Amino acid sequence: MEFRLVESSDFTIISPLVNEWWAGRQMADMLPKLFFVHFNNTSFIAEKDGKIVGFLIGFVSQSHSYEGYIHFVGVHPEYRKHHIGKKLYHQFFNAVKENGRNIVRAVTSPVNKVSIAYHIKMGFEIEKGDKEVGGISVVADYDGPNHDRVLFTKKLD
Amino acid sequence: MEFRLVESSDFTIISPLVNEWWAGRQMADMLPKLFFVHFNNTSFIAEKDGKIVGFLIGFVSQSHSYEGYIHFVGVHPEYRKHHIGKKLYHQFFNAVKENGRNIVRAVTSPVNKVSIAYHIKMGFEIEKGDKEVGGISVVADYDGPNHDRVLFTKKLD
Repeated sequence: MEFRLVESSDFTIISPLVNEWWAGRQMADMLPKLFFVHFNNTSFIAEKDGKIVGFLIGFVSQSHSYEGYIHFVGVHPEYRKHHIGKKLYHQFFNAVKENGRNIVRAVTSPVNKVSIAYHIKMGFEIEKGDKEVGGISVVADYDGPNHDRVLFTKKLD
Repeated sequence: MEFRLVESSDFTIISPLVNEWWAGRQMADMLPKLFFVHFNNTSFIAEKDGKIVGFLIGFVSQSHSYEGYIHFVGVHPEYRKHHIGKKLYHQFFNAVKENGRNIVRAVTSPVNKVSIAYHIKMGFEIEKGDKEVGGISVVADYDGPNHDRVLFTKKLD
């Protein structure tokens, strides 16, 4: 397994993969090209035998000078027990630290139980929201009407 | 007319407005909350009598250290002859210059003739693409399959 920074040209390969990896859910709209052009120095690709098997799109916050933000993480369904996600997160954590920052944020949907469990396992804490869904604190309408979100924060050592 | 920086809380007001202002086109997906949280120091609001009548969401590129990028601009349909767009662009140009940068980029769809004409009027140049649509040079599939785009660049003085 090899890890490298995202390049602008990776967009053409990754964009169609995303809907596939999410089993047909329309996810590609969340990943416009701009993320591959303007944030590729904090975004990472995992490759196995020259094939992309995972990626993480993140950036350092422009408004919050101590923070990095993870926008989107995808791992090929056939490679989900290979710790690719964990290694991508650690690549990003290192990039955040190299930028002199020590807080990482991420956001997910309350229905995405796998993502919630994963972030907790990775040491993220859930920020107190304004309501609970299935025992998890969420911010109601965070990403628009009926788009509640779970907000994660992790302090880096 | 007053201009100010975007605040995180503006998202709740602007997100539902976007689809309205674009006459029902689903545009709000292009504007997730993250832009209002992490890029609000280069994004601007125009207000008239306390009501939001325009906004510009932009950022300085993390990968390209001389560039700013305009992601999304909206003006209330009833206020479209009041030079609000022009003033928002100039607020952004100033922010880009204050960040020690002198190139501004933006991207639009070939079908959006109004946007193309507007960017040319604002002094943007069209980058050479790999095909022509209606006499305009575009990059085929720039934002995914069948999502051709016109790429604009402006050098600031």
